Amino acid sequence: MQTKILLEESQIPKQWYNVIPDLPGPLAPVINPRTLKPVTPDDLTPIFPMAIIEQEVSTQRWIDIPEPVREIYRLWRPSPLFRARRLEQALGTPAKIYYKYEGVSPAGSHKPNSAIPQAYYNKQAGIRRLATETGAGQWGSSLALACSMFGLECTIYMVKVSCTQKPYRKSLMELWGGKVIPSPSEFTNAGRSILAQDPSSPGSLGIAISEAVEDAASHADTNYALGSVLNHVCLHQTVIGLEAKEQLKIAGDYPDVVIGCCGGGSNFGGVAFPFLADRAAGRQVRCLAVEPASCPTLTKGVYAFDYGDTAKMAPIAKMYTLGHDFMPPGIHAGGLRYHGDSPLVSQLYHFGQIEARAYRQNACFEGAVLFARHEGIVPAPESSHAVRAAIDEAVLAKEEGKERTILFCLSGHGQLDMAAYDSFLSGNLEDYEYPEESIRKSLANLPEVE
Amino acid sequence: MQTKILLEESQIPKQWYNVIPDLPGPLAPVINPRTLKPVTPDDLTPIFPMAIIEQEVSTQRWIDIPEPVREIYRLWRPSPLFRARRLEQALGTPAKIYYKYEGVSPAGSHKPNSAIPQAYYNKQAGIRRLATETGAGQWGSSLALACSMFGLECTIYMVKVSCTQKPYRKSLMELWGGKVIPSPSEFTNAGRSILAQDPSSPGSLGIAISEAVEDAASHADTNYALGSVLNHVCLHQTVIGLEAKEQLKIAGDYPDVVIGCCGGGSNFGGVAFPFLADRAAGRQVRCLAVEPASCPTLTKGVYAFDYGDTAKMAPIAKMYTLGHDFMPPGIHAGGLRYHGDSPLVSQLYHFGQIEARAYRQNACFEGAVLFARHEGIVPAPESSHAVRAAIDEAVLAKEEGKERTILFCLSGHGQLDMAAYDSFLSGNLEDYEYPEESIRKSLANLPEVE
Repeated sequence: MQTKILLEESQIPKQWYNVIPDLPGPLAPVINPRTLKPVTPDDLTPIFPMAIIEQEVSTQRWIDIPEPVREIYRLWRPSPLFRARRLEQALGTPAKIYYKYEGVSPAGSHKPNSAIPQAYYNKQAGIRRLATETGAGQWGSSLALACSMFGLECTIYMVKVSCTQKPYRKSLMELWGGKVIPSPSEFTNAGRSILAQDPSSPGSLGIAISEAVEDAASHADTNYALGSVLNHVCLHQTVIGLEAKEQLKIAGDYPDVVIGCCGGGSNFGGVAFPFLADRAAGRQVRCLAVEPASCPTLTKGVYAFDYGDTAKMAPIAKMYTLGHDFMPPGIHAGGLRYHGDSPLVSQLYHFGQIEARAYRQNACFEGAVLFARHEGIVPAPESSHAVRAAIDEAVLAKEEGKERTILFCLSGHGQLDMAAYDSFLSGNLEDYEYPEESIRKSLANLPEVE
Repeated sequence: MQTKILLEESQIPKQWYNVIPDLPGPLAPVINPRTLKPVTPDDLTPIFPMAIIEQEVSTQRWIDIPEPVREIYRLWRPSPLFRARRLEQALGTPAKIYYKYEGVSPAGSHKPNSAIPQAYYNKQAGIRRLATETGAGQWGSSLALACSMFGLECTIYMVKVSCTQKPYRKSLMELWGGKVIPSPSEFTNAGRSILAQDPSSPGSLGIAISEAVEDAASHADTNYALGSVLNHVCLHQTVIGLEAKEQLKIAGDYPDVVIGCCGGGSNFGGVAFPFLADRAAGRQVRCLAVEPASCPTLTKGVYAFDYGDTAKMAPIAKMYTLGHDFMPPGIHAGGLRYHGDSPLVSQLYHFGQIEARAYRQNACFEGAVLFARHEGIVPAPESSHAVRAAIDEAVLAKEEGKERTILFCLSGHGQLDMAAYDSFLSGNLEDYEYPEESIRKSLANLPEVE
């Protein structure tokens, strides 16, 4: 009985799937925070190459993956699809559980799927350096890797408190040639103005975004790169779902439910969008986005126009949001801390095309430990949300006495996150649900856009 | 152009290759440290199951891999063989560089290749618990994983100072259900006698071995498991080389040189032994064992009978040794710290069948960073020794203007070893060569065996 379903390198998708033409209704516009009018390509050229700007609004259903990008994808793609037979047995479920494992990338997560093409398009556009921000470091390390592959410099504004708490992610970025700057820094106006108010500021993702965008906008040879949320990032991640469909075909299976963890939304979109495309052909597949109860954007937020960042410098997008003032609690172990969500995922959720569910982190780690003891792989804390949901779906199938085919994305491994497991195993991981009261507060400050 | 060569799960080897019948000369005996006479199976039954004892001395060239072991191997095997095209290009070498990547196992190294069958044979023999020791934690975590797969308990005596320095490996073992005991402990006579002399003893691998063996010998339901050195461990690791041969066949290639890092010798033996077997058929392949200059067993030690441990409780084996009193310096980053070497590797080296080379650790990390920036994967510090040697062989090929096919084993990834990379990148990694003077000293205490 086969455990993994592998594809040949020649089967790495040749095109990404773009969900925009298949959205329920037209794509909501993105608004310039200064003019309060729809963003134009000219607004974006200071920080993005034209190829990326085009992908952001393209209505082409299929977009070619450049050959040099596929060349780098070969270092780890196609990623394996596993049948979790040992977990199924442990649960005594009639359900079949498949997981698409993205932890085989050199960075240990799905993030390089978008970092590689972003580095490529910037290199093609004659850019010399990319600037970005990172919190836990998954995206920063992936972009450093991608830049090293295409000979670009990489500047990463890393939330200062994370530099101290996660020194190893910092080392990983430096190993791949990235330059890590603790944020807030003295290198940007945004950073200096924060430091002037509070010289010992621990930083935040919002501040780091502002610094990276300013760096890119103020240097002609430098662009900006974002690791989730935006349409082109979700587009790049569809290699996950496209490969999984081919692999399930080989297994003679099709999922009843597709599960992904959801922070900015690119991992969930990556695995789920290609299956949504099959609905036109009459396939009935549920898609379930799983988020932390400490940052419950889809399940407790509102669908509204909101700023992409705390400093109100990033474009205003229509999305599920907890308000740009939302402050994710420091005790939350994984990533998935963004106040908003991918506009594409948000629009699909708003129109009832996908489902969402929130879990507290102890339930997720519990699921991850059960998974690791039977399947071996240690899930990243982010991925543990998908693991938990898959287990619950399988247990439900058992209770209902129904067969069911479950596919989830195991977006990364957790070997760089052992401190969080340590807290969990020693009973010191704080459980937490973001209070409704605080959400109401941060939702009071949404911008007024017609 | 293909980057990875993959095999189907059905191509996981069905038999391990046993090098014993192909050794130059008969297998040297192993000596009981109390009687100074050859060890008998009865000496070993208190700590090993009969299946393992038989493998230790078997003269069968091929030994069947039990189906339940192959079932677990499927979780990550066959492991991929990569062609390092981007590294070749960076070096401008005419050489082809292939690497067999063992970091795809859930533990991130080759160690589970032997942990899985050891757990299996013990489970078959009715054993309830395994005891072992660990330093850096690679072996301890692999055995915890294996025990979790077969429903065995696992007790790991972990060198006390490593528990503090490497808390994440400890968490990894606990995640997989292992019980980690800082050594020296109060649980054994060996531990108590050390603590009586020095209550704040930081521990050592030698002490931890003594504790684990005592634990196993004094509990009928408990056995002992070792992660390298012994013949059966090298045997289990030959899946590496056997798969690599099949994969190179697909590529239409055969190596001129096979390279592995060498501490206890099981990783080197695993990749090299199956190629040595081809010599009978007239194939000329060099096999190169690479060790750290801080623990230069093959290159600076002597071929003699010596104790397996500091406490002189483990059997006496004929091997290359630096003397059982050898104290590896604390500044050495990776594993590969054992005073002796696999008797099989030693015998082959003594009779000129294989080569050996030692590197200082900064040269190894330099090679590993070059590798990571072109191939993506971050090598484990141990594996970086093989990386360095492969790079040097490729550069030599360039200087000589010769084509050459190089195969090396990338035995694991380094994402749990970022502290060492951090030291290297910040210029704080101490370089070190073990002084000849100290080797002469520790070699003065070899046991007298005829």
